Amino acid sequence: MNIVLLGSGKVATQIGKALHNAGIPVAQVYSPTLEHAQTLAMQVHAKAISELAELTKNADVYIISVKDDAILGLVDQLDLGDKIVLHTSGSTAMDVLKSASTNYGVLYPLQTFSFDKTVDFSQVPIAVEASSPEIAKQLEALAHKLSPKIIQMTSEQRLVLHIAAVFACNFSNHLYAIAEQLLESKGISFDYLRPLIAETAAKVQQALPSEVQTGPAIRKDEKILQKHLDFLKEQPQLQEIYRLLSQSIVNL
Amino acid sequence: MNIVLLGSGKVATQIGKALHNAGIPVAQVYSPTLEHAQTLAMQVHAKAISELAELTKNADVYIISVKDDAILGLVDQLDLGDKIVLHTSGSTAMDVLKSASTNYGVLYPLQTFSFDKTVDFSQVPIAVEASSPEIAKQLEALAHKLSPKIIQMTSEQRLVLHIAAVFACNFSNHLYAIAEQLLESKGISFDYLRPLIAETAAKVQQALPSEVQTGPAIRKDEKILQKHLDFLKEQPQLQEIYRLLSQSIVNL
Repeated sequence: MNIVLLGSGKVATQIGKALHNAGIPVAQVYSPTLEHAQTLAMQVHAKAISELAELTKNADVYIISVKDDAILGLVDQLDLGDKIVLHTSGSTAMDVLKSASTNYGVLYPLQTFSFDKTVDFSQVPIAVEASSPEIAKQLEALAHKLSPKIIQMTSEQRLVLHIAAVFACNFSNHLYAIAEQLLESKGISFDYLRPLIAETAAKVQQALPSEVQTGPAIRKDEKILQKHLDFLKEQPQLQEIYRLLSQSIVNL
Repeated sequence: MNIVLLGSGKVATQIGKALHNAGIPVAQVYSPTLEHAQTLAMQVHAKAISELAELTKNADVYIISVKDDAILGLVDQLDLGDKIVLHTSGSTAMDVLKSASTNYGVLYPLQTFSFDKTVDFSQVPIAVEASSPEIAKQLEALAHKLSPKIIQMTSEQRLVLHIAAVFACNFSNHLYAIAEQLLESKGISFDYLRPLIAETAAKVQQALPSEVQTGPAIRKDEKILQKHLDFLKEQPQLQEIYRLLSQSIVNL
């Protein structure tokens, strides 16, 4: 089995490295920007290409891993017969791949990826979906080489998983960034918050978050809530976030 | 040096246990509900009391660790001469202790506490503030027995630290809880999110959160943002949180 990667972003990079480390050859890396393709291709011993005309017809699996907005535009240019075509998007339905091949599917790794920080893929849940039971078998076999945590999911379930991930990961990181900004404005090091952030995430590795909520909102500590809102009065957007999330904690 | 603990909540419990483990005797634990006082007193080999009249006059340090709203009411009933009186609140000014003693201060451990999960206090930053340089010395000596990470902070700096902690910890946990609820509604296990949550917190142990933001908002992936908002249309509060945080990511 060999692979072509279409895309060179964070997800493509980490999937490419994980495939390479699992001994699955990556034949080509495509990106419209040759330099980007080269950066990833070098790491996975593949050929970099920047023209779809150069795409080999002899790979077994074509993995499209680009910004969700760009998937459709790319799919429209592909005609891969019965080769397996996959995308890696949480929120894009599987069926958008239909025009590129008769065999297709989704391989959605649920993790936050960086270019540099190598991820332990054996800890990454992978949601898979396939156009037929046969393709499902081949897709699962491929995914299993990356991680033991494979989940069969419909496109609709995967969308919910992605939205949940946006709340739990992207939005949480943004709240860390707000905290960073607040501390910075008073010359306080972000270092002091790091153990708290680590413990907050550690707590829910065993417990459910709904069972371990702490803070002034869940205590209904009105005076403190008001004091915090007053402090934030010159940053209306932060004040609004504080108000809305506190209200939501009380409601839940 | 021996200690009286006024309070029996999560913070009082973990501070009590940390003092006890550091070999600092806890003489009494006070709570208006005797049963609560007993639960903690048992763990730290102290006497449980539920009447302030029973408070010993012979302790060196009195630590008030109750819900912020309740501090003032308790302080009003105390008259401890020149004994050191501390509170453990992030958002309460040190000066509220003035009427209880001539010597006072704050010992604010920056961590999220549970009743059961024992915290490694050596990793907990402790913000301290004291009514005089002399008391500061004694307070630092006490705090140092719990953790090497001691920070001198004014009441105003501590307030900002607390607000930052509410964003980074309390609100993040609430976002985990929203994710839990979304998954539950589709019968998907929260388990799948745990590695993502762990990695999100792990990433900012080295990097700054403002440098590692990922997700559709920072990519300005408008189609996905709209798809997620559409999915949330029957849960207007979640939709509003999604919209506001996405907007805030774009603005920052």
